[in-house]
Amino acid sequence: MSKKIKTGILGATGLVGQYLISLLEEHPWFEVTELAASEKSVGKTFGETCIWRISRPMPESVKRMTMKSASPADNFSADVVFSSMPSDVAGKIEIQFALTGYPVISNSSSHRMDDDVPLIIPEVNPDHSALIPIQKRNRKWNGFIITNPNCTTIGLTLALTPLKKQFGVELVQVTSYQALSGAGSAGVVSLDIIDNVIPFIKNEELKVESEPLKLLGMVQNDKIELAPFRVSAHCSRVNVSHGHLLAVSVKLKRKPSVDEFISAFSSFISPIQSLNLPSAPLKPIIIKGETDRPQPKFDRNTDNGMAISIGRIRPCPVFDYKFFTVSHNMIRGAAGASILNAELLKAQGYL
Amino acid sequence: MSKKIKTGILGATGLVGQYLISLLEEHPWFEVTELAASEKSVGKTFGETCIWRISRPMPESVKRMTMKSASPADNFSADVVFSSMPSDVAGKIEIQFALTGYPVISNSSSHRMDDDVPLIIPEVNPDHSALIPIQKRNRKWNGFIITNPNCTTIGLTLALTPLKKQFGVELVQVTSYQALSGAGSAGVVSLDIIDNVIPFIKNEELKVESEPLKLLGMVQNDKIELAPFRVSAHCSRVNVSHGHLLAVSVKLKRKPSVDEFISAFSSFISPIQSLNLPSAPLKPIIIKGETDRPQPKFDRNTDNGMAISIGRIRPCPVFDYKFFTVSHNMIRGAAGASILNAELLKAQGYL
Amino acid sequence: MSKKIKTGILGATGLVGQYLISLLEEHPWFEVTELAASEKSVGKTFGETCIWRISRPMPESVKRMTMKSASPADNFSADVVFSSMPSDVAGKIEIQFALTGYPVISNSSSHRMDDDVPLIIPEVNPDHSALIPIQKRNRKWNGFIITNPNCTTIGLTLALTPLKKQFGVELVQVTSYQALSGAGSAGVVSLDIIDNVIPFIKNEELKVESEPLKLLGMVQNDKIELAPFRVSAHCSRVNVSHGHLLAVSVKLKRKPSVDEFISAFSSFISPIQSLNLPSAPLKPIIIKGETDRPQPKFDRNTDNGMAISIGRIRPCPVFDYKFFTVSHNMIRGAAGASILNAELLKAQGYL
Amino acid sequence: MSKKIKTGILGATGLVGQYLISLLEEHPWFEVTELAASEKSVGKTFGETCIWRISRPMPESVKRMTMKSASPADNFSADVVFSSMPSDVAGKIEIQFALTGYPVISNSSSHRMDDDVPLIIPEVNPDHSALIPIQKRNRKWNGFIITNPNCTTIGLTLALTPLKKQFGVELVQVTSYQALSGAGSAGVVSLDIIDNVIPFIKNEELKVESEPLKLLGMVQNDKIELAPFRVSAHCSRVNVSHGHLLAVSVKLKRKPSVDEFISAFSSFISPIQSLNLPSAPLKPIIIKGETDRPQPKFDRNTDNGMAISIGRIRPCPVFDYKFFTVSHNMIRGAAGASILNAELLKAQGYL
Repeated sequence: MSKKIKTGILGATGLVGQYLISLLEEHPWFEVTELAASEKSVGKTFGETCIWRISRPMPESVKRMTMKSASPADNFSADVVFSSMPSDVAGKIEIQFALTGYPVISNSSSHRMDDDVPLIIPEVNPDHSALIPIQKRNRKWNGFIITNPNCTTIGLTLALTPLKKQFGVELVQVTSYQALSGAGSAGVVSLDIIDNVIPFIKNEELKVESEPLKLLGMVQNDKIELAPFRVSAHCSRVNVSHGHLLAVSVKLKRKPSVDEFISAFSSFISPIQSLNLPSAPLKPIIIKGETDRPQPKFDRNTDNGMAISIGRIRPCPVFDYKFFTVSHNMIRGAAGASILNAELLKAQGYL
Repeated sequence: MSKKIKTGILGATGLVGQYLISLLEEHPWFEVTELAASEKSVGKTFGETCIWRISRPMPESVKRMTMKSASPADNFSADVVFSSMPSDVAGKIEIQFALTGYPVISNSSSHRMDDDVPLIIPEVNPDHSALIPIQKRNRKWNGFIITNPNCTTIGLTLALTPLKKQFGVELVQVTSYQALSGAGSAGVVSLDIIDNVIPFIKNEELKVESEPLKLLGMVQNDKIELAPFRVSAHCSRVNVSHGHLLAVSVKLKRKPSVDEFISAFSSFISPIQSLNLPSAPLKPIIIKGETDRPQPKFDRNTDNGMAISIGRIRPCPVFDYKFFTVSHNMIRGAAGASILNAELLKAQGYL
Repeated sequence: MSKKIKTGILGATGLVGQYLISLLEEHPWFEVTELAASEKSVGKTFGETCIWRISRPMPESVKRMTMKSASPADNFSADVVFSSMPSDVAGKIEIQFALTGYPVISNSSSHRMDDDVPLIIPEVNPDHSALIPIQKRNRKWNGFIITNPNCTTIGLTLALTPLKKQFGVELVQVTSYQALSGAGSAGVVSLDIIDNVIPFIKNEELKVESEPLKLLGMVQNDKIELAPFRVSAHCSRVNVSHGHLLAVSVKLKRKPSVDEFISAFSSFISPIQSLNLPSAPLKPIIIKGETDRPQPKFDRNTDNGMAISIGRIRPCPVFDYKFFTVSHNMIRGAAGASILNAELLKAQGYL
Repeated sequence: MSKKIKTGILGATGLVGQYLISLLEEHPWFEVTELAASEKSVGKTFGETCIWRISRPMPESVKRMTMKSASPADNFSADVVFSSMPSDVAGKIEIQFALTGYPVISNSSSHRMDDDVPLIIPEVNPDHSALIPIQKRNRKWNGFIITNPNCTTIGLTLALTPLKKQFGVELVQVTSYQALSGAGSAGVVSLDIIDNVIPFIKNEELKVESEPLKLLGMVQNDKIELAPFRVSAHCSRVNVSHGHLLAVSVKLKRKPSVDEFISAFSSFISPIQSLNLPSAPLKPIIIKGETDRPQPKFDRNTDNGMAISIGRIRPCPVFDYKFFTVSHNMIRGAAGASILNAELLKAQGYL
């Protein structure tokens, strides 16, 4: 592939935008050609306007790029755009770009639950991209919008995928220990979280209770038939930089033995494994055998932050089984999720 | 009351021991007269041997007391003993003291689930002290042992008490965010918990799943008939000094309206309220109306750390209702729990 | 005193404003009658507009007070105003209030170094209030402005006061470990400080290097002759909620023995001790004898947060002596400092 | 190099031991062949006995190695030993190994200040290895001991090296913000450091005040003539996992301009650069131009943790200049320092 796909990032100065830039720095298929953020940064260089919060240094290639307005004007030189804008502005702007002809790969929540917008985790429901032509027809758009789920939903749904396939899922109870970076680059005031846990994240529980049903649903009559199970979520913010830990209890249609249950995870092969996508983990689910794992600090970076770790699998006195899972909220749960979606679309011929 | 009850503390140098000392410093009924800990501290003064980890300074009255061996020998000058020893040694030593004639008020887990040992939270099951004469008869002891539950159990069971009384409880799912002090004075290595959550606390989930059934059970045929509901627990350690936060979901026998549900908490009157025990909170349960409360840092000290706070009450898509609760694990969940038990016994005539 | 002094607070929703409200809640001399903050809060109740970040609950008395504009208009019902506004707006507004006739007790940096504005720590230089009549005459104001120093300056200068008096001070090197609350209620992003130290606080070193010279200077010819020593400061932000720790090295005019040096601190009696001001600490300087104290967590609240703690006093291979000191930056270093200044003015007849 | 040097690690289960193992995993010259620790681990596998606290997983190659006793017995199969034992036991054991013929590369403090034991930072004083033959002759040993300095000394002395060379150093004042890992794998109790700073590290200030004088001294008459300047240190522990931050003020023999001062750092070329040692950083000193750097979290891993970062260079009102520096205490300050010393010895022909 001699020429890379020109890529614009909307919301580039935010934390997910920074991760997109960092992960795309040496990407074999994509190169960052445009950066956009809110009006106050337009005209400045990225280096001037962005408070860089990632350990890996800001790539030299973006430092001197001039910030554009988040608008599909003539001079926006990109073949595809990633959107990591705040949800209060993302909705309209993404429509403008899709209308103009851009494929929009979005991490924002604005269109996730729209009937004709695919909500995709490539290892879970790569076939949902079938909504793309329907969306373009419905909306008479030259481009389209595709979304990835909320950072907490992703870890949970990846874990539920092999369970649903092998045993059927009936009830899910999930409690989160969510990292600070999930709140964005200026999200949580240090004085609020030191020596504390905050048991509230706006709109989060609603997302976690609804998005998995679409992800694990089926394409039927030009839309997604929601999966018929129920999820209940408790969501809290803890004093951890990156990596969401989830405590999950599940009731299954058929109750397996513990060995069968563990084996469902460990033998899980992603339906897209054969596509060899650059950002796909070798195995999306890693089983931790230690008594006290997974832990955010030690397991969030597994397989470059794209694999989830599952451990402490044990019977549940109320449901069937319970376990903990950790995933990197900024990579597996946001920027990496968007990039893997883009890679899937490329492999499927949509880009 | 001109003369106070002479009180010994077994395990005085540990963190619960330190809280016992601090809370008893100006207690109207009890005065600390003996301190005991492991053999290596015997003969030293408390001030020399104890690494004091409480903000309030070490009381002058104990600083120069000489540490005794944890043994009911001739020179152990106490009318009652509090035991906050590690569970691996507490079992035998508590028996020695009870055999010799001491009332033993224990925070250790060793005898909690013994058939004839009361496991008591005064606001929940003050009548379980009826096991004391049975225990003395069974074991031919002059003294006796009475216990309080695990720190996580206490917050949970206080919350369940009005629910059980008014609606009946069927299923309970609880996930904990437990504070560092619950692991004792040297419990968690800082390098393990900074930027991390540890999803494992030894034996904790088992205790939280079993103790509430005894607490909410009934005295019948000289023992406790366990309450007939089921609890499932996920327990984790978070980077918080004090205050356990619990995410609780409940399925009730009769599903009330939200208002009825909230009212069960807010109208709860403790069965021991009329006893006016010195350490009893004005109201054991406080409802927090803010969207993001209760929080460990701001709510753990409510009513001197003896009241629990409940908030974020909302319907549950899987069970009936869900909510969060915070309690001070060292006060309400350990030292204060023991002292309140001692006060109850005094009021009931057992001391 | 049957009637309390009516008190307005400018910048009431900020963190220092909250501490002012909390500390004045049951003050014997002052009662809060007006609250003002930025324009966006005007007309709302304090309870609606303020994100309360103090453990002690918001006083009921202010919850329903309606926020006013920070302007000395007709309906501003106060005898005196405390100003804890951000320094970029405080300068002008304080002048408006002083011009109109209000005594302005300011915690802001805007006027601290003005020639005719007193910069006062009551235990250090209560006589500098002599500038008040000069200021009023110079500026033709009915009211006046009096200021307290920066939070780091206060701890340092209190420690230097007995040293200067007894031995003379020549050189001071101070390195700070400053708490998060010093940056205000929304100051430090949690993601920036977790597992980190930030070795930069805007303008802080300049303040710490200059303010002590005015505080320890003398009133001469209607202004302050600066004290003739030099201070060098390194200032950093650490992951601590409250309590600034300072590492201080001093070269004195006359080098005392270690015992003399310690005794200078321990025998220090504040020049205002006899005034019995309600917020004055019993002893402004407490010596800690333990090998590892003072520590922010354990020593910040000494004497209601109004005493500083000094420890680890030892000879310095480069200067004469070195030591550590802790002070509560929000109480001793800000809100409590302003209130103590107001009490001093009352005792001196300026209010 | 077809055959690697067989390497034993004494104190393998400690935190520095773990870093040695991790850094040697794919080392081109050394391979780990023996692991030893305290008696209680002897006979167990490393995987069983070690609580691994490094993010990078435990190498498979050591997991099943059987722990040996730390004694140079017949079956200890190594050409060289690294010692990271606690200083209370290291002294004697290192002598036993050196006596028996082993080159001992030590990170322990026991022999650092012995007259005939080299204390080396390769970029600072590689020529001090000239003490090795003197040591062997003095002590009639077949092997020898070489040491690296304390973790705080290393960052400081690397920074002082170009200053001494270009301007001469007269006085140094250093205040540390030291990371938790410097206290070893079980060093700091989480309850002691959360929301706190501990202004005391046993023996640390003494080491920081004396070791730089030996490092920057000269070999003369078979021993080291100490460098003739003075250092004063304040040392504290902060809530950071890895990376020591130092605030440094220096008085030089000749006061340069700011540009000259900065240039001394930025133009510094290590005397061992031409040796191309595998663990040597490209540039040992990196200048950070941002206003708020260096910071432990973002700068500790520069050049695989082997380069120090210097920033906030500015004039000092008391001395000449002041600045901050960050170095990774476990890599540059301990395990990596030992390995670089071993590489230097190999290049110099001592191994």
